[in-house]
Amino acid sequence: MIIRVYYEDTDSGGVVYHSNYLNFMERARTEWLRHLGINQYDLKLKDNIMFVVANLDIKYKKSAMLDDELRIETELVNIKACSMQLLQNIYRDNELLTSSNVAIACVDAIKFKPIKIPTYIKKLMETL
Amino acid sequence: MIIRVYYEDTDSGGVVYHSNYLNFMERARTEWLRHLGINQYDLKLKDNIMFVVANLDIKYKKSAMLDDELRIETELVNIKACSMQLLQNIYRDNELLTSSNVAIACVDAIKFKPIKIPTYIKKLMETL
Amino acid sequence: MIIRVYYEDTDSGGVVYHSNYLNFMERARTEWLRHLGINQYDLKLKDNIMFVVANLDIKYKKSAMLDDELRIETELVNIKACSMQLLQNIYRDNELLTSSNVAIACVDAIKFKPIKIPTYIKKLMETL
Amino acid sequence: MIIRVYYEDTDSGGVVYHSNYLNFMERARTEWLRHLGINQYDLKLKDNIMFVVANLDIKYKKSAMLDDELRIETELVNIKACSMQLLQNIYRDNELLTSSNVAIACVDAIKFKPIKIPTYIKKLMETL
Repeated sequence: MIIRVYYEDTDSGGVVYHSNYLNFMERARTEWLRHLGINQYDLKLKDNIMFVVANLDIKYKKSAMLDDELRIETELVNIKACSMQLLQNIYRDNELLTSSNVAIACVDAIKFKPIKIPTYIKKLMETL
Repeated sequence: MIIRVYYEDTDSGGVVYHSNYLNFMERARTEWLRHLGINQYDLKLKDNIMFVVANLDIKYKKSAMLDDELRIETELVNIKACSMQLLQNIYRDNELLTSSNVAIACVDAIKFKPIKIPTYIKKLMETL
Repeated sequence: MIIRVYYEDTDSGGVVYHSNYLNFMERARTEWLRHLGINQYDLKLKDNIMFVVANLDIKYKKSAMLDDELRIETELVNIKACSMQLLQNIYRDNELLTSSNVAIACVDAIKFKPIKIPTYIKKLMETL
Repeated sequence: MIIRVYYEDTDSGGVVYHSNYLNFMERARTEWLRHLGINQYDLKLKDNIMFVVANLDIKYKKSAMLDDELRIETELVNIKACSMQLLQNIYRDNELLTSSNVAIACVDAIKFKPIKIPTYIKKLMETL
């Protein structure tokens, strides 16, 4: 996914504010799911499930600046009954800016308790 | 209400990002309601109503910077059956930074349609 | 400009948080300038000028939701020596969600004082 | 540090948006520095240094909701020549919501290259 950096993303240090890379990665996960034919809005309304971040570590290597065009790469590392592990890297051209491991849990959209990833989604992901 | 400016509020222009003043005013409205004994979370859950911004104009006069301490003053201008008009000014010491007229509508929390402001809330506000 | 609504843009009321429409409009202004060949990052670094919001009024008519695709239309209403007036409407398909008048001032990027819009920019805009 | 959750912090999942906990922690670090007599705005302007996040891992255990009052505890784990390691936990009453290890680097505010933490700051921190 390609993302453009706007003023809203930056801070007075002159670079992208550190938590906004997490927003960029969440956009990329949404598009990654949409690309598999999974719409999170429907998922919540119809299947009563949500994918939430359970765990995240991020290494900040280089800073993004206003007007930069960033590329977010999302890779499925593994998938279990109720969770999955992703690797998400953010690049400006070929320069790696941040590298993150993100554990995503599948939860009941009302109780926020872990719940099994629906089989049809698991199958879609395993084809990757 | 007093608000401190943090890095997250600023942009690479070196000042507070323009839309964040709206967030500050929303915090001030929440505390203004809380001060009247009105909790918005309960309001939604129990009374099924929400107060939403219907209309807003803001004049930007001076910029706030990182670490500034801002004072937000909220004044009820008038109140009608389903809406109210507020004046919200943001100051740094005695310097006026932004001045805003904010029209708030009372809506059904599910259908987002205008609904009468509950009488007990109207009475609380008219004592101001 | 087309914008997709992500989780970051919404609030617990279930709709897009009211100040985020200002962010969407700022992205649209940036792309509108870029389309004219004007890069704001260079503008600040080379010409020492910035375009800032001086005044803004917004009418909220309908709410945008998670996953909505929004279209932001930006129209130059008039341009003066140091400022310009824009009309920015946000649509979902043919439904008007918000309508805004935005006054943009051209300022010195260090002193934040009004400064004349460079002639080459004014000419580019007058060709619209 | 005590933080109140406002609408701006939540998302349409009904809870605090996951990246906003990073903002809360950044506010807490700023106040922790201020408590030691260190103002980040002066630090950048006078000493030309900034503290930036180099590395962060966060475990999400429970979700915060609108109107919650959160307590952020910041503990210095160790301090080296150019960096320090913090443990930051976020609680609602006695319930642990998130737990984070945050590596902070001291960098030159212009070149963004690692630089030694000024001795006077190191001494202030070692008294903790």
